[in-house]
Amino acid sequence: VDEHRWFKHRVRVRYQETDQMGVVYHTNYLNWCELGRTELIRELGYPYRDIEAKGLILPVVEAELKYRLPARYDDEIEIYTRVSSYTNVRMEFCYEIRRVHQSETSIANASAGVLGVRPAGDLLVDGLTRHVWVNQAWKPARMNKELPELLKLLSEKS
Amino acid sequence: VDEHRWFKHRVRVRYQETDQMGVVYHTNYLNWCELGRTELIRELGYPYRDIEAKGLILPVVEAELKYRLPARYDDEIEIYTRVSSYTNVRMEFCYEIRRVHQSETSIANASAGVLGVRPAGDLLVDGLTRHVWVNQAWKPARMNKELPELLKLLSEKS
Amino acid sequence: VDEHRWFKHRVRVRYQETDQMGVVYHTNYLNWCELGRTELIRELGYPYRDIEAKGLILPVVEAELKYRLPARYDDEIEIYTRVSSYTNVRMEFCYEIRRVHQSETSIANASAGVLGVRPAGDLLVDGLTRHVWVNQAWKPARMNKELPELLKLLSEKS
Amino acid sequence: VDEHRWFKHRVRVRYQETDQMGVVYHTNYLNWCELGRTELIRELGYPYRDIEAKGLILPVVEAELKYRLPARYDDEIEIYTRVSSYTNVRMEFCYEIRRVHQSETSIANASAGVLGVRPAGDLLVDGLTRHVWVNQAWKPARMNKELPELLKLLSEKS
Repeated sequence: VDEHRWFKHRVRVRYQETDQMGVVYHTNYLNWCELGRTELIRELGYPYRDIEAKGLILPVVEAELKYRLPARYDDEIEIYTRVSSYTNVRMEFCYEIRRVHQSETSIANASAGVLGVRPAGDLLVDGLTRHVWVNQAWKPARMNKELPELLKLLSEKS
Repeated sequence: VDEHRWFKHRVRVRYQETDQMGVVYHTNYLNWCELGRTELIRELGYPYRDIEAKGLILPVVEAELKYRLPARYDDEIEIYTRVSSYTNVRMEFCYEIRRVHQSETSIANASAGVLGVRPAGDLLVDGLTRHVWVNQAWKPARMNKELPELLKLLSEKS
Repeated sequence: VDEHRWFKHRVRVRYQETDQMGVVYHTNYLNWCELGRTELIRELGYPYRDIEAKGLILPVVEAELKYRLPARYDDEIEIYTRVSSYTNVRMEFCYEIRRVHQSETSIANASAGVLGVRPAGDLLVDGLTRHVWVNQAWKPARMNKELPELLKLLSEKS
Repeated sequence: VDEHRWFKHRVRVRYQETDQMGVVYHTNYLNWCELGRTELIRELGYPYRDIEAKGLILPVVEAELKYRLPARYDDEIEIYTRVSSYTNVRMEFCYEIRRVHQSETSIANASAGVLGVRPAGDLLVDGLTRHVWVNQAWKPARMNKELPELLKLLSEKS
């Protein structure tokens, strides 16, 4: 694994994301994965909003998560995301969701949202999602035909 | 208030709807209001899905909620909804969200989803939502022109 | 696979569960899995609420989902759940999330919430979740010590 | 209205927050209000997490929202919050939820999270929430007895 390809994005746990166990309800980590890949794609230079404006969408076809430690209300969380593989029709992203150590809060914050970092902090959840490119009629689409710019950005930066 | 116009719909509190206070997170009652009016409109004979298929939508322009008692995980809840007023361009719904008494669970269930009931059970939250009819371009629409069937159902049944 | 161990529970897609792709946002299927196992455990005779009242919780440690077809607003969905394996310290549940065929809506409804059914309808999503038993301090717990009644129900009925 | 008491907090619209109308689902604005008052209280110098650690909670007893314009996916949103009134037993917060003008994105960002700003950008939603202080048994609590430090911060800064 080449840690230089990891992208990190900071969020803080919202009250709404907790449940009566006193921890983050487990489906929210999957939301955070979406935030991670959205911000990674933005960082690559092609916001997902613009991709959908071109008529392409990237639905999830598979998701796997391993829960190791619970996140709690108001924790500062870093979502680490990287493109683990892609072809013209598919994409796979890996994730590590980590809690920022209290002492590193301000330093870590300084480098939030940067591509090419080494994951740090307590590992809470890791996992992956697999996606296919489809058009608005949910028919398969090909990146080299429909989104050559993104393909180029992926090959250069991810 | 003519209680015969109340419609009731039963839900059970989901784990996801709780927060670390050990009660239902307050925004979920607003979701339940939507469920209530959706099921009321279905009961009138015109599912909201069909309304949107005709190109009309009914966004919320105002919402007011009063929280009196908290709902808890696994509680059986009844959402009481009635059309409190309407014109060709606007609609207003009132809501009472109540907890079913344990002893009445099975009896109450028998009459769940029926129009024309008297609200019963512990009052947890009451409120209202106001809506306007718009088309897909978010321009104002008129029920008498676009949805005369619904207008007729409202005048007869609500 | 012994289909007699499947339990089914009916839900209808809520407006809130859709996203701007016009389909159900992918994390909601994971919520539905929770509903499925909650209702299965209730059907076995030991509501999860009572389990937590005894100080035991059953957090998710792993989740895997395969997305095959999208669910849409107002669809009637059946969540099929079965206990695929368990030990004194772990539990695994399998899920099939299916859309009810319009023509079978009323018939299927008659048998909703029954244990021992054969999954039917369009397969939308399938997957599994793995869990461990812990106490309120998040220390490992053993079913045979803490919840012998549930263990007995599982061996008899699942 | 003294605009110097407004606090602003920036969020970006998440995909999950959209619905099939192509806009933000209406209950999410109420979530954003919670984010706004959480960050305002943190800015005052007393994080809500610490308040709950002292055994006090601040449930919502009333909420009113007026929806003027819809937010859309990926929009940058500013949540403006101010303490509109308080006594020893009650608190009221006002909110303005605004969309940042594209041209002002980077400048506005620079001053995000600062107390004492004049609301700017397109007004999407405004409203208020009313709260009461209670202890963990949901019995009324008094700020002057239980949280004199917060009362002092409120009188000085809000």
